Amino acid sequence: MDKEPTIKEIRNAYKRIRPYIHRTPVLTCSTLNQMCEAELFFKCDNFQKGGAFKIRGATNAVFSAEEKANNNGVATHSSGNHGAAIALAARWKGIKSYVVMPENSPNVKKAAVANYGAKIIFCKSTLQAREESLADVIDDTGADFIHPYNDYRVIAGQGTAALELCEEIPNLDIVMAPVGGGGLVSGTAIAVSAVSPETHVIAAEPENADDAYQSFCAGEIIPSQNPDTIADGLRTSLGDLTFPIIKKYVKAIVTVSEERIAYSMRLIWERMKIIVEPSSAVTLGALLTEGKEFSNKRIGIIISGGNVDLENLPWVN
Amino acid sequence: MDKEPTIKEIRNAYKRIRPYIHRTPVLTCSTLNQMCEAELFFKCDNFQKGGAFKIRGATNAVFSAEEKANNNGVATHSSGNHGAAIALAARWKGIKSYVVMPENSPNVKKAAVANYGAKIIFCKSTLQAREESLADVIDDTGADFIHPYNDYRVIAGQGTAALELCEEIPNLDIVMAPVGGGGLVSGTAIAVSAVSPETHVIAAEPENADDAYQSFCAGEIIPSQNPDTIADGLRTSLGDLTFPIIKKYVKAIVTVSEERIAYSMRLIWERMKIIVEPSSAVTLGALLTEGKEFSNKRIGIIISGGNVDLENLPWVN
Repeated sequence: MDKEPTIKEIRNAYKRIRPYIHRTPVLTCSTLNQMCEAELFFKCDNFQKGGAFKIRGATNAVFSAEEKANNNGVATHSSGNHGAAIALAARWKGIKSYVVMPENSPNVKKAAVANYGAKIIFCKSTLQAREESLADVIDDTGADFIHPYNDYRVIAGQGTAALELCEEIPNLDIVMAPVGGGGLVSGTAIAVSAVSPETHVIAAEPENADDAYQSFCAGEIIPSQNPDTIADGLRTSLGDLTFPIIKKYVKAIVTVSEERIAYSMRLIWERMKIIVEPSSAVTLGALLTEGKEFSNKRIGIIISGGNVDLENLPWVN
Repeated sequence: MDKEPTIKEIRNAYKRIRPYIHRTPVLTCSTLNQMCEAELFFKCDNFQKGGAFKIRGATNAVFSAEEKANNNGVATHSSGNHGAAIALAARWKGIKSYVVMPENSPNVKKAAVANYGAKIIFCKSTLQAREESLADVIDDTGADFIHPYNDYRVIAGQGTAALELCEEIPNLDIVMAPVGGGGLVSGTAIAVSAVSPETHVIAAEPENADDAYQSFCAGEIIPSQNPDTIADGLRTSLGDLTFPIIKKYVKAIVTVSEERIAYSMRLIWERMKIIVEPSSAVTLGALLTEGKEFSNKRIGIIISGGNVDLENLPWVN
């Protein structure tokens, strides 16, 4: 895919991935509605295959990969959910996959990627080492590279969550998603602006990793430098494919403190009885921070995932 | 209600409580199916109002309480979810409620009961103090006493979870529920034996609070002495109303070690991304303990609740 996806590509992605992924439920919670004085609809991709929305984009990319991928496989770099998602999607398609991972990645993540049958290539945990390792892998294997977010096939796949949400819950005033590299929010923004043009898309981001907010204000990409946030899925910076889409379609970016992220995560656990990762709590944190602007609105919230280290919860010392 | 409830009373209870409670979802998990080599259907009453099945029995009891309750209110003793459930149901009906609680109950539980508008009567944390306080309250107020489980109105209400489950998932081989005082499992057993007579009902219980297992084997009630288990909802012993129902309709009682309960709870959190309390993990623990007997079966599992102290998780030291 060479140009920005439209709703047509997102609908095609949906047809392509539908046999493999879950249609995740939309949950509501009267206590959180009362606290926010709004009507909230949580699209629960923490219940998605692999525990995160990432499988949507990965599956679309793998199943629409270049011809050479059939023989040579697909390759990516990832310390998180994207690597496992690529490995799983490649297994579904019956092709090879290569995942470059920092050698200090958690064992549980290494095991997930290996169990899905990917070949793991370990590297030092610097950006340079990662890019060099990936270039070597692609040189050696001829695999098709699938970036975690800066790839139109991935963006189109991530847009399918919002497509399902808008189909199930019409007339939303706002749809919110967290922003890290921007794959989820850019796909969301394209989908929502097409199927529900009156609905505003708002992104939420940790204050401590606010490159999207800074870039949005400056009009050019300003990457985060060593961001330190518990929202581990949101430490990456925008890409040159995701940023223009965000500039075009996203209404606002709200930043949220670490304390508010942890508080919001705990609220969701206690009140909704579902497990969400810190990155998924940033949107509720934004609502609680900017309360007035959201009151009496119908708000869809994309819950990005539920992969949490249960030994290291932000409220347990 | 003076005699053992039948399916008719459970259906009446369902009509009575339906406007107030959630119809909770039934979830599945392919990983847990693979681990158990069985097909599991989780009836998620952790998503119920108040975070537990208790509101079913409490609401049925309050809305079918004796005439005097309209003026004098209802009373109970509870350190857990039943007190809050009675308070909430009484508020729905617009009558008074009195809850006797040990003075060392967690603040969060005291606050829940008080917020729902009940009058709390604190007592020392002995059985004798609790019963004396309750007798005083009833003498003073003329309130109708609603026992947490040893009450046919409560038993009929608890049976509505299994009624919903069997309606949604037909042809189950087994339905499992945890057993403490026996309110949930006795209501479940009456419902299942009527609407799906081929289905076996199996109860699960902590090894460290195995009064139901002991009583079941001996044919008479043998109460637990100071049971010490993380499954705090299952420390109570069977009542003289619940035990005969269990003897009549329950096929087996499986006991589960503390380690296995904690492991199973964590599995549900990690794999299903839902929050369940330790008492709700005993059933999966039983499946993992007695694997062979359950293989290739279609098994309904009643998840009793999701009220957990997030500061004190059994796998975090």
